[in-house]
Amino acid sequence: MPVKVTVWSENYHEPREEDVRLRYPDGIHGAIAAGLTERLGDRVQVRTAILEDPEHGLSEKTLAETDVLTWWGHMAHEEVSDEVVERVQQRVLGGMGLLVLHSGHYSKIFRKLMGTTCSLTWRDAAERELVWTVAPGHPIAEGVPRPLVIGEQETYGEPFGIPEPDELVFISNFSGGEVFRSGCCYRRGLGRIFYFSPGDQGHPVYYHPDVRRVLANAVLWAAPAAGVGDPLQNAHTPITW
Amino acid sequence: MPVKVTVWSENYHEPREEDVRLRYPDGIHGAIAAGLTERLGDRVQVRTAILEDPEHGLSEKTLAETDVLTWWGHMAHEEVSDEVVERVQQRVLGGMGLLVLHSGHYSKIFRKLMGTTCSLTWRDAAERELVWTVAPGHPIAEGVPRPLVIGEQETYGEPFGIPEPDELVFISNFSGGEVFRSGCCYRRGLGRIFYFSPGDQGHPVYYHPDVRRVLANAVLWAAPAAGVGDPLQNAHTPITW
Amino acid sequence: MPVKVTVWSENYHEPREEDVRLRYPDGIHGAIAAGLTERLGDRVQVRTAILEDPEHGLSEKTLAETDVLTWWGHMAHEEVSDEVVERVQQRVLGGMGLLVLHSGHYSKIFRKLMGTTCSLTWRDAAERELVWTVAPGHPIAEGVPRPLVIGEQETYGEPFGIPEPDELVFISNFSGGEVFRSGCCYRRGLGRIFYFSPGDQGHPVYYHPDVRRVLANAVLWAAPAAGVGDPLQNAHTPITW
Amino acid sequence: MPVKVTVWSENYHEPREEDVRLRYPDGIHGAIAAGLTERLGDRVQVRTAILEDPEHGLSEKTLAETDVLTWWGHMAHEEVSDEVVERVQQRVLGGMGLLVLHSGHYSKIFRKLMGTTCSLTWRDAAERELVWTVAPGHPIAEGVPRPLVIGEQETYGEPFGIPEPDELVFISNFSGGEVFRSGCCYRRGLGRIFYFSPGDQGHPVYYHPDVRRVLANAVLWAAPAAGVGDPLQNAHTPITW
Repeated sequence: MPVKVTVWSENYHEPREEDVRLRYPDGIHGAIAAGLTERLGDRVQVRTAILEDPEHGLSEKTLAETDVLTWWGHMAHEEVSDEVVERVQQRVLGGMGLLVLHSGHYSKIFRKLMGTTCSLTWRDAAERELVWTVAPGHPIAEGVPRPLVIGEQETYGEPFGIPEPDELVFISNFSGGEVFRSGCCYRRGLGRIFYFSPGDQGHPVYYHPDVRRVLANAVLWAAPAAGVGDPLQNAHTPITW
Repeated sequence: MPVKVTVWSENYHEPREEDVRLRYPDGIHGAIAAGLTERLGDRVQVRTAILEDPEHGLSEKTLAETDVLTWWGHMAHEEVSDEVVERVQQRVLGGMGLLVLHSGHYSKIFRKLMGTTCSLTWRDAAERELVWTVAPGHPIAEGVPRPLVIGEQETYGEPFGIPEPDELVFISNFSGGEVFRSGCCYRRGLGRIFYFSPGDQGHPVYYHPDVRRVLANAVLWAAPAAGVGDPLQNAHTPITW
Repeated sequence: MPVKVTVWSENYHEPREEDVRLRYPDGIHGAIAAGLTERLGDRVQVRTAILEDPEHGLSEKTLAETDVLTWWGHMAHEEVSDEVVERVQQRVLGGMGLLVLHSGHYSKIFRKLMGTTCSLTWRDAAERELVWTVAPGHPIAEGVPRPLVIGEQETYGEPFGIPEPDELVFISNFSGGEVFRSGCCYRRGLGRIFYFSPGDQGHPVYYHPDVRRVLANAVLWAAPAAGVGDPLQNAHTPITW
Repeated sequence: MPVKVTVWSENYHEPREEDVRLRYPDGIHGAIAAGLTERLGDRVQVRTAILEDPEHGLSEKTLAETDVLTWWGHMAHEEVSDEVVERVQQRVLGGMGLLVLHSGHYSKIFRKLMGTTCSLTWRDAAERELVWTVAPGHPIAEGVPRPLVIGEQETYGEPFGIPEPDELVFISNFSGGEVFRSGCCYRRGLGRIFYFSPGDQGHPVYYHPDVRRVLANAVLWAAPAAGVGDPLQNAHTPITW
């Protein structure tokens, strides 16, 4: 059975900024979705959703049909309704995989799941990013070159205000001198979360074959083997074994 | 310099239930505060605060003078204002220590910092709890007997809906058959969090000398060596090294 | 392609003690192997090996054909040759999965991979063991009852002298009062290691359907997705990207 | 009471290579010892020991008087006797702190405590190293600039064949493009271990005031609060609570 993926993006830059529209004519979500389909074929069933869709395209029904959700946001984090964020959180805790991408580090859903600031430092200087694998046995790193070279990218720097990752997979080196924990795995409730920092509206990163490889690996890693269930919210009851 | 501790409790049961009032004539907060002073003397400076105080006794000024906050709540979690919870979270991320006690597992502040359900299973049957040390070198376990024996206690059971602890210090065995991760350490932002499950309004657990020892150890462990600072909320700025 | 499993046991008790021989007429290794085949069918290809085989049945050739090795030992840890232990370690670091069972906690290979004492406390009193899942989303816990009930088992107790597990999946409660971290996951090099404590020569634990389920789940979890490779031993070389 | 520190070094390069002797006239151990005394004054009591001393200067008596041991080695790892390595390991598991420095990553004692290859990639090209703090609340990072700038250093690169650190404190960026997990904390048995990569015989890194600050912080962090005891080797006995 294919993994059901919903690729979410705020789609804020694309209609407003010509350079982004030219770079991502089908939207950032379109490029991400195409990459997953390109690499995984019929192992996935991909749909997209954006902020302006009803309920941001993340209705109960859609989430109930989603095994893995990918999240890209930047300018419009605060426009995402708390109700939808709560709904996504419950679904993650119940087993749905979540990929949080690039500036999504500051999204409501990531901050809510992490419990920390999720802040970082940054500089927009089109620097070269080298993504180094530090966990060579991890499924998300499978087949990824060491290093994965991204010619131009926004720079992200430490300290990154996250809980210590359950598994740290990638660390990036930027030509300007920074380092960044660019690939971080978390287990929360029954769900798996992967944060991956490469990917910016200002650079064509989501067409990069090895970035696509990482995202495809991560979708397979985050997919719930046993389906998505009750987030144990109701386990707060007397024991009856 | 003494560690400045604020002992917080909802103080819900005490005025409403005679058995609790007889058990804890100075409130649960009073018993916890007395235990810390008894064990740590002038190494701590302890104050108490309760739900019905203005701003729940947790004003900006009070928090600014608090190195470690202890939190006990049960029936009135939802009555704690979101504004105060947000304020406490920011302070923890800036370095303030936080001890979350017993049914405080379901408090707004713990759930907000963990990002998960924090649910558990329970049974009120006055069972014997044995608290076993699994991290014998940890400062919080110093001098704690193996096992720490609590004659009667509410039973808590797994699965406990928390992120995997950064350090697991204690696991409890209940005579009814359950186990529970009863002593869990977290690092979040610049702050340290310790969850400790023994302690219930229905049992005189906070007079137990070894429970008091654990809480005293935990206060010293959680105290910020370098003071409490900015939670790096504002680090979301260009790099300037 | 089936996962190639080698089930290793010292086979010390079986020829020497009638009660063990009656309990495990095909050896402890035979019971474990049968359980894996019963549950996984042609998803696995299982062979067994014992201490008295040439090279303990763990020649270079056999290991080269092994995806997951399971290890049971008790009385004869010191009779395992250092050369074979070194060979197994290198293979694990290169990606082979390893399941360490019960008294195997004190084997040379487990101690070598952990770097710690791996000591524990114990009592042989045929107590009831309840194995509780603390990581409900973990693949090794899939389908395992909460609790998994073992009528009679040797008691193991904390402190267990291991590094903090990368993922803690099970904690056991013994009717005599102990707790024990009975299911512990580690990532070492490119390999995955799972320690599981239930299973003793004095009790028919390896016929228990849910113990068999755990072992089957663990084999699938530990199998190297990308095959077994160089343990990066030779990566100690100049960088050439 | 002062923390008793033994600074160990193989002292291989110094008598053989003039440039190293000129750089470190009192030996690498001498420079490290001087740095600790300079920063910590009478909070520490520092002695040194080298490979050619009887029992490598690490007799039972010396170790019994050591709270924290620092280890620098490079060319002569294999000349360290297994007996001494075993002795140091037992002492660490009993609570002694251990700081493993630079090329000490490949020492017998570090590999024995980690259980992995501890291999890495490297290049000797006098590149600039920037050491970034990723755990700003950690005591070892206290007062350390972000970044700590080392003008010229040997380059170390990932993958570094270690178990995932219990706490990752520093990550380095090298001007040649590499990243490296340069500050890694482990808890093993009752002891604490800190690996810190900056420091090479070919560069005057151990005179760098901020490197000295890190080492001083690390000595205080690794010192056993409750003294050094039995490594629980003998806990493998029946339970008697």
